[in-house]
Amino acid sequence: MPVPTDPLLAADDDARVLARTLLSRARHASLAVTDAQSHTPGISLIAFGLDPDGAPLTLVSGLAPHMAALRAHPEAAVMVGSPGAKGDPLTHPRLMIRVRAELIPRGTPEHGDLRTHWLGLHPKAKLYVDFADFAFARLTPVSAILNGGFGRAWRMGPDDLRPA
Amino acid sequence: MPVPTDPLLAADDDARVLARTLLSRARHASLAVTDAQSHTPGISLIAFGLDPDGAPLTLVSGLAPHMAALRAHPEAAVMVGSPGAKGDPLTHPRLMIRVRAELIPRGTPEHGDLRTHWLGLHPKAKLYVDFADFAFARLTPVSAILNGGFGRAWRMGPDDLRPA
Repeated sequence: MPVPTDPLLAADDDARVLARTLLSRARHASLAVTDAQSHTPGISLIAFGLDPDGAPLTLVSGLAPHMAALRAHPEAAVMVGSPGAKGDPLTHPRLMIRVRAELIPRGTPEHGDLRTHWLGLHPKAKLYVDFADFAFARLTPVSAILNGGFGRAWRMGPDDLRPA
Repeated sequence: MPVPTDPLLAADDDARVLARTLLSRARHASLAVTDAQSHTPGISLIAFGLDPDGAPLTLVSGLAPHMAALRAHPEAAVMVGSPGAKGDPLTHPRLMIRVRAELIPRGTPEHGDLRTHWLGLHPKAKLYVDFADFAFARLTPVSAILNGGFGRAWRMGPDDLRPA
């Protein structure tokens, strides 16, 4: 029986398709972190893509404040789905995912595979992907909320986000 | 003397103009909070505008997870500046602001003034601004980073963000 005060719907197939479409199309995202020094929220724009298994992935500079934040506090949240130029931005669908970040060490076979895959998604990243301070971070979903516009939101689990 | 490892520049007049332009044009933003229950980062899309004094402002539903988060942890972060449809999203300017949120009680003269001002910025909000669970939250800046694109970022204080 649903909790009366929970305004979120249970995920259904239409919601899953929308969530996976938002994820597969996203090439950037907003990332919320806990700052390494202040321990208060920080926010950044990140490059975004899915790894070959469909898990959210980003490429981060070691100079970015969110790299230090993710090292100190791997729990983070990511949002995909950009408001368009027209209409009420809050009616545009977006997906908010709680994630746990895992940095992929350079020089490993996994890094090499992700590098090739990433350059297919982000060809311009070839300008900096090999800089020594850059690293991939896999953002493994813990839970998610899909907001389809005013008053329509679904609660989702990691399985709901995986490519079918 | 600058700290050698700090990649951020000191604010200058050009950076201030860009930051204030991003703020004054923004009608939506990304908000990072500390979740009330999990105490890990949460992220949301919010409606955005500046109050008559130039301070960031949003209108939040009591049903939104970030309302509970802001009540529990007023420290938050907000990002304005949307990537356009074309080009590398990471080259688009954006402003990340650490803020302290303050909810404005309904039924106060201040709420009435903000309501009138907000409807000038967001005419469609008249559909829900008077719902009992909606409240304004002023997001008072603590510090900010302006990112003007790859490798160009400035550290800013609250005074740098105020309308001239």
